[in-house]
Amino acid sequence: MIETGFPTTGPTLGEVGEHEVIRAILGEAPSPFNGDDAAVLTPPVPNSRVVVTTDMLVQGRHFAPELTTPFAVGRKAVVQNFADIEAMGARPIAAVLAFSAPPELPLEVVRQFAAGIQSKVGEYTSELVGGDVTSGASLVLSISAVGSLGGSLPPLELGRARAGQRVVAHGKIGYSAAGLALLQSGADIPEHLHPLVHAYQAPELTPGRGMIARAAGATAMTDNSDGLVRDVGVLAERSKVLIDLDSAALAPDELQVAAGELLGIDPWQWVLSGGEDHTLLGTIDGSAPVGFRTIGEVRKGAGVLVDGSTPAYSQGWESFS
Amino acid sequence: MIETGFPTTGPTLGEVGEHEVIRAILGEAPSPFNGDDAAVLTPPVPNSRVVVTTDMLVQGRHFAPELTTPFAVGRKAVVQNFADIEAMGARPIAAVLAFSAPPELPLEVVRQFAAGIQSKVGEYTSELVGGDVTSGASLVLSISAVGSLGGSLPPLELGRARAGQRVVAHGKIGYSAAGLALLQSGADIPEHLHPLVHAYQAPELTPGRGMIARAAGATAMTDNSDGLVRDVGVLAERSKVLIDLDSAALAPDELQVAAGELLGIDPWQWVLSGGEDHTLLGTIDGSAPVGFRTIGEVRKGAGVLVDGSTPAYSQGWESFS
Repeated sequence: MIETGFPTTGPTLGEVGEHEVIRAILGEAPSPFNGDDAAVLTPPVPNSRVVVTTDMLVQGRHFAPELTTPFAVGRKAVVQNFADIEAMGARPIAAVLAFSAPPELPLEVVRQFAAGIQSKVGEYTSELVGGDVTSGASLVLSISAVGSLGGSLPPLELGRARAGQRVVAHGKIGYSAAGLALLQSGADIPEHLHPLVHAYQAPELTPGRGMIARAAGATAMTDNSDGLVRDVGVLAERSKVLIDLDSAALAPDELQVAAGELLGIDPWQWVLSGGEDHTLLGTIDGSAPVGFRTIGEVRKGAGVLVDGSTPAYSQGWESFS
Repeated sequence: MIETGFPTTGPTLGEVGEHEVIRAILGEAPSPFNGDDAAVLTPPVPNSRVVVTTDMLVQGRHFAPELTTPFAVGRKAVVQNFADIEAMGARPIAAVLAFSAPPELPLEVVRQFAAGIQSKVGEYTSELVGGDVTSGASLVLSISAVGSLGGSLPPLELGRARAGQRVVAHGKIGYSAAGLALLQSGADIPEHLHPLVHAYQAPELTPGRGMIARAAGATAMTDNSDGLVRDVGVLAERSKVLIDLDSAALAPDELQVAAGELLGIDPWQWVLSGGEDHTLLGTIDGSAPVGFRTIGEVRKGAGVLVDGSTPAYSQGWESFS
């Protein structure tokens, strides 16, 4: 089933006021760490480092009521932050939420955002520990996440891919872009293609894969947020290596092929240049860690190739275009 | 001297693109922790806890080009976050910045934001360690801060004020509101009142006062963000105590009196209900810590009084009004 739309009725933020807005959020996402000027987290385990990241989602730019639900937006906002924490090989432990919204927004929208956030932070055994709410002309959510990197192994940095390693991936690639294309087409979306739409609305990753990869010997990692070729390209550039992707491992699956036929779009476009899957993309010596599959190899050189040739699609997300 | 206005010329974000926007920020605020999916901070000192908070500033709501500068907005954004960290008795160690801006915004605005952020995080021996930039209809900044709470003393929580303590403050009270009123009046502001305007544009606090207060035995603390009576009221409510403020310690100073006369406004309004000074407000047994002055006492009961009577002004900032 595909659900879209934001609640448009019921009491608004302006009617209930800031106190009730915060109460609604805390009702969905209660945390003993929340409610003071700042959240004081549990003492970290010895020999661990703090990892921090932030992301902002703007209505009309990153999400639209006609394409998704507040619950899904909340889940996606958490995933895109936590994927950045995991891409360092770390464990997400807490998130804070800041958002602006017009006073006319129904409180129910915020409640569903919070419920989505709570459902996703819970999957990661993490918590929403604080936030800030304010009025503003547009609906803007900003989530920042804090993670913990245990032990003395280095983090999984963009600059640590080495020639001879394999490139591994955990998660779907090109699903989110396919789902978005289906929604934007206005077409009647057959039920067997709903997983693509769900991946756009809120991608699903198995928590903890970044830590697993680091423990298994991965050295570099990022997540597929702006497009596969683009994101892997940053990794290649920062590591001063060439990454050669394997088309057999990346070939659009039957859902993507069917969606491509329905819309008259080459599904390779979604695979190579669609972002927002937040798939973990890493490099490692030896075999792929549990939950990862091999999608290419690291060689001496520069840039990104597919089967040794220039990729058919390489454009990615550009913030101010 | 009073400076206001945002740059309106030069290359825009849309013209230079995301990469150059990030380069401009990193040029002003370089950090070895910045540039990967997430920032991995230095290992904390043993026996320390992580403290996290977030705040969002919306153009037109929290700042306006005709009243301030991007440099000052950057400084203020950091102060209001770091004051929340300090209000737990902790030390700010890092900040991340997310912002949305229309593509037409001159890059120079962002560069000056970043310069302001850098100048303020530097005062706290802290760093801007990461961020996210995106386009959006309005200019929205969200800063999240991470702090470190060392040692085994509890944090300075809202609920830990006790009857018999004194109420202490570090920083100006009612300066920011007076400065804003001067700017909004359109009056020609005499030079001796400029400190009020500067306090509105970016309040100045001495870094480290929250830690000092905790070490000296303070138990509860918050910062004056929404208005003195309102913020102290939250502290009183959460601690189930009455706070009686001392008018002699809070009396408007000669600058506030002069501004009040100029504008025909009772300056007590700024003192009691003006927010955004980010003054640290704490409670402690015994004498005021270095840098703090006594402004009242904690007694059994409930609510906030001034010299034993209902405050003349108690309204504060309300986000969705």
